[in-house]
Amino acid sequence: MKPKINIGLIGLGRLGRNYADYIAYRIPRANLSAISDIAETAMASCAEALNVSKCYKRYEDLIADKEVDAIVIVTSTSTHKLMIIEAAKQGKAIFCEKPLTLSLQEGRAIEQALAQTGAFFQMGFMRRFDRGYAAAKRKIGAGEIGAPVLFKASSRDPYRPSLEYADPKISGGLFTDMGIHDFDLARWFMGEVRSVYSTGGVLAYPEMKAIGDIDNGVTNIVFENGTLGVVDLSRNGVYGYDIRTEILGTAGAIKIGYLRETPILVMAKAGVAHDTVPYFMERFGEAYVAQLRNFVENLLNDQAPAIACADGIAALEISLAAKLSYEENRPVALNEIKSN
Amino acid sequence: MKPKINIGLIGLGRLGRNYADYIAYRIPRANLSAISDIAETAMASCAEALNVSKCYKRYEDLIADKEVDAIVIVTSTSTHKLMIIEAAKQGKAIFCEKPLTLSLQEGRAIEQALAQTGAFFQMGFMRRFDRGYAAAKRKIGAGEIGAPVLFKASSRDPYRPSLEYADPKISGGLFTDMGIHDFDLARWFMGEVRSVYSTGGVLAYPEMKAIGDIDNGVTNIVFENGTLGVVDLSRNGVYGYDIRTEILGTAGAIKIGYLRETPILVMAKAGVAHDTVPYFMERFGEAYVAQLRNFVENLLNDQAPAIACADGIAALEISLAAKLSYEENRPVALNEIKSN
Amino acid sequence: MKPKINIGLIGLGRLGRNYADYIAYRIPRANLSAISDIAETAMASCAEALNVSKCYKRYEDLIADKEVDAIVIVTSTSTHKLMIIEAAKQGKAIFCEKPLTLSLQEGRAIEQALAQTGAFFQMGFMRRFDRGYAAAKRKIGAGEIGAPVLFKASSRDPYRPSLEYADPKISGGLFTDMGIHDFDLARWFMGEVRSVYSTGGVLAYPEMKAIGDIDNGVTNIVFENGTLGVVDLSRNGVYGYDIRTEILGTAGAIKIGYLRETPILVMAKAGVAHDTVPYFMERFGEAYVAQLRNFVENLLNDQAPAIACADGIAALEISLAAKLSYEENRPVALNEIKSN
Amino acid sequence: MKPKINIGLIGLGRLGRNYADYIAYRIPRANLSAISDIAETAMASCAEALNVSKCYKRYEDLIADKEVDAIVIVTSTSTHKLMIIEAAKQGKAIFCEKPLTLSLQEGRAIEQALAQTGAFFQMGFMRRFDRGYAAAKRKIGAGEIGAPVLFKASSRDPYRPSLEYADPKISGGLFTDMGIHDFDLARWFMGEVRSVYSTGGVLAYPEMKAIGDIDNGVTNIVFENGTLGVVDLSRNGVYGYDIRTEILGTAGAIKIGYLRETPILVMAKAGVAHDTVPYFMERFGEAYVAQLRNFVENLLNDQAPAIACADGIAALEISLAAKLSYEENRPVALNEIKSN
Repeated sequence: MKPKINIGLIGLGRLGRNYADYIAYRIPRANLSAISDIAETAMASCAEALNVSKCYKRYEDLIADKEVDAIVIVTSTSTHKLMIIEAAKQGKAIFCEKPLTLSLQEGRAIEQALAQTGAFFQMGFMRRFDRGYAAAKRKIGAGEIGAPVLFKASSRDPYRPSLEYADPKISGGLFTDMGIHDFDLARWFMGEVRSVYSTGGVLAYPEMKAIGDIDNGVTNIVFENGTLGVVDLSRNGVYGYDIRTEILGTAGAIKIGYLRETPILVMAKAGVAHDTVPYFMERFGEAYVAQLRNFVENLLNDQAPAIACADGIAALEISLAAKLSYEENRPVALNEIKSN
Repeated sequence: MKPKINIGLIGLGRLGRNYADYIAYRIPRANLSAISDIAETAMASCAEALNVSKCYKRYEDLIADKEVDAIVIVTSTSTHKLMIIEAAKQGKAIFCEKPLTLSLQEGRAIEQALAQTGAFFQMGFMRRFDRGYAAAKRKIGAGEIGAPVLFKASSRDPYRPSLEYADPKISGGLFTDMGIHDFDLARWFMGEVRSVYSTGGVLAYPEMKAIGDIDNGVTNIVFENGTLGVVDLSRNGVYGYDIRTEILGTAGAIKIGYLRETPILVMAKAGVAHDTVPYFMERFGEAYVAQLRNFVENLLNDQAPAIACADGIAALEISLAAKLSYEENRPVALNEIKSN
Repeated sequence: MKPKINIGLIGLGRLGRNYADYIAYRIPRANLSAISDIAETAMASCAEALNVSKCYKRYEDLIADKEVDAIVIVTSTSTHKLMIIEAAKQGKAIFCEKPLTLSLQEGRAIEQALAQTGAFFQMGFMRRFDRGYAAAKRKIGAGEIGAPVLFKASSRDPYRPSLEYADPKISGGLFTDMGIHDFDLARWFMGEVRSVYSTGGVLAYPEMKAIGDIDNGVTNIVFENGTLGVVDLSRNGVYGYDIRTEILGTAGAIKIGYLRETPILVMAKAGVAHDTVPYFMERFGEAYVAQLRNFVENLLNDQAPAIACADGIAALEISLAAKLSYEENRPVALNEIKSN
Repeated sequence: MKPKINIGLIGLGRLGRNYADYIAYRIPRANLSAISDIAETAMASCAEALNVSKCYKRYEDLIADKEVDAIVIVTSTSTHKLMIIEAAKQGKAIFCEKPLTLSLQEGRAIEQALAQTGAFFQMGFMRRFDRGYAAAKRKIGAGEIGAPVLFKASSRDPYRPSLEYADPKISGGLFTDMGIHDFDLARWFMGEVRSVYSTGGVLAYPEMKAIGDIDNGVTNIVFENGTLGVVDLSRNGVYGYDIRTEILGTAGAIKIGYLRETPILVMAKAGVAHDTVPYFMERFGEAYVAQLRNFVENLLNDQAPAIACADGIAALEISLAAKLSYEENRPVALNEIKSN
């Protein structure tokens, strides 16, 4: 057993910079041995703060570094395919943030490259590593709520992303950018999806129309086993980052989520109030750490990835079906998407 | 101003018997002056308990009673039309429990009779009189959450009704029997509905198949103003009677509902637990009282009914569209239902 | 068995007027047959609203009324002794609001009169009839938290009473006026009290000094069985009427209380907030009804009173000990009070 | 400015071992450069896990190490005095876990040594660094609850400590071992203490009698400014680690604390339940990290310690007064303790 995994991190945006900290400080069995970002100042400041000696402007050079055992990809989605295929060819283990890609064609190309090279690949869907979601999965597996019959999920961002980021050509649009987390959870808790139906609209930020995306959407799901689901997504959860999931079974229900950040309650004439969770780093910071730790442990212990490339593709398929359903105002069967 | 309204109550089933108590004890400006039910023992025991002197086996006789000012109808839905039309002809004020009827044809016949006679008519949708729903309506009206963009409602019964009761020919089926409350709230909070899409299934009680109904359903809504809604209905909220509504706006959100019946928390090694609301009388008992009080006050003060016959028909139209959508697996526009 | 109990109600202040409504409408087996209050306009408006035919300016006349079976006393504390003794002599059943009296001497005189006449007497401590407190008592009796070791209670009024009302010569002062409820609960849950120690101060309303009372106080309790208690009282619970009790046992704990009046949550940028309970009628309205119902049922079924005169005296003894302890800054044994 | 602080950690018990992890991974500006513990296997396994090169069996040798900038002391209380004085003499910065010592004499000897050497010294009271307590302090400072009038704190361990640990000669007994945290918070929120009165008993674990300590205790506090406080302590919070604090002011109140570890709710026929916080590492892990970070930042930025030696002594004085009060069943003024 190798004592530590040398990790090369590509992408030092907001989330990537957090990943750098996590790898440097929170994963005992990992070294942050190299970083790469096209923004040189971001790279330099990260390198100084975390004492990283190797900085590569070109990601290809990082991947080519012989000392690097594993690649962690936190770049914009459009770059994932080339990076994964290159890393797979170089025999590196790979961790890639969601979404895998925005097109099924690219997804299949990635899948093929992984199959051909046998590279270790793990998808990032951090919610599965949140203590709440993990406990819910265990409890449902143990039969605590009987047979699940309904999956409900609600995801609300505290404000809309920048129009540059939200551009559907970059982000995939609401059903992919936000929905893919919930669609992954839907599969994880309930099984494969048979069909979806979506509604949506530009209801809070008229400027979203200019980029061709919506700010609120609701997707009904029928799973292959006949059970039901519904996901509602909103960019205007202005009161806080509000991520809730509920599974109703024949013998009970489980709710996952919370909306109180600081353990205090203020009691005043105006009412009794608590604060809210500001955004995803506050809500899922520990889940990101647990996810990276799991990736490293799987590598060290020759275990299968917790979340595979196929999971990334399957969640994408649902989000594409949800989007198509919204555009054409009709239920869309997953088979229709898969056979494209 | 007449000092008290003499009420004739028709229907002494579970809910009707509660209405009898409410009218007798909780509505200062009302007398329970006559009762009618086909079950004579139920009528006799009610008469004795509440000291009601006039018992009519035939509802027509109660309606014909000159001393009776107003009729309260809590009988099975199929009987509503004849009773309402008869009472309207006799010049009585009328309160009718939901649903008004199961068919639009009947609904229109009722509407016509009311128009011709000018009889005072008020629909029963007690949730609007719950303190939580009423406060939410006020706060939204005052702009506390900005412009509403999403309506979410969840209704769960603690167990399935008897198959006799649940028979869609009697109850109208899940989307009408349970859903009509949520569809009425949807209109009340958001405005008229443009289209719906429903999914559903027999997921908890296989015996429901025999009567041709489902036990779980989800209905997506698009309102005429473009805002969104979703209602999920379940007969297997086995942990308690769980009624929740949430309205998300551009500046905040409001949640209505609770699931704790007794104000205690038990803290033990197994966890921290509270009890749940057993069923609708515990949850909405005070709302029923407030609703009857409102009916009586409207009569005494010559005010318009809080909920009109047209509201009963509009909620029925949504539930019929929801059912049709489920049956044909396609979005259904409300106009399609209305033009039938 | 007599069909209904004819009740004569003495005292139509804020609470008394509510009692009138409860007796008139909420207690099926009771008639409000007579009322008495020194304020004639209050009496007249109550008589009109509730259709009470007998109004007595002098309480002695109400007590002397042959048709009256039972007397309910909701007058100021200083009047209790004479009324109870007179009613006992006239053979009436008696219900008396807390506190029984402000002096042990008076308490013993009442006890003697009741013993001599054999009159039925029930003390009012409505919290015991609250669903939360009743459920806690049952659960503790069933062993759900093991052996109780600590009793904690907190009572907070939303604002200070008028200085006229709060005057210790009238109200008994903070430890009696507010504390007596908690001291009664302390005995009910834990057993008799061995000693107390109190601290207190004028911390929120400097004008309280003028009347010789404090606005905040804390009383430590040691029970005869060695278990512990603590009660904190405040006139400045300005955020709402906040009544909480907690019992810690060797196998768990139970909390009683809540602070949310309306079943809604408002989620806004400022935080997630709910309203609070305005005052005692909102919190304990149903408990008052249940208490009166219990009184009537005990009469009809020849059952012992749920709360006896001795309970009223015992709670008073604790509150007197608490006050003395505060005044002399030393622990006070209950025996010292009892032997006075 | 020195880039990193080299820390020598003394004590690798349960908490000390966590400190080692925190220093190694969570404090970017600190190195764990040396460790010391009398248990050599604990030291060896820690050294291997965290790649610490310097292990000292004798703490004196660690303190003498020229490369070590700062000493963190997490040993049993009886050893604190010698270590602190030695480290002060060697010019090291010092962080010491609570309690500083069990005797005022020792406390004063430490204070004197620090004054003579001018060594930087910071006390450990991690609760002050919890996000809830820190937010409460800020909000109260900003006037959100008006003038504080009542401090309430409750500390419950999920089970009793081993009799060896709990031995008052080692731990100081309940009022010191558990209470010192609450007494420190009391001073922090309300100001200095004038007098205390305590009750207590062996109510859950009879075996505590053998070591001469109690398992439950309640301490009333009067602060120098006349405001009030009460602290209840229990070893039998068997349902979880339950730490709550509440400050009532003239314009509102703040509650700090929570009892839900995992963000899920399970809704079943038995009720709606959440889990509890297992113990202090789960509740205050991040507070410990924040506290160590603060220590390191204070060193790097030449800032005064957040919590001084005098704070350690003042909290000890209150706990000694609380104990004496319990033993002699009388209120004890802090002056009496200080003048000893």
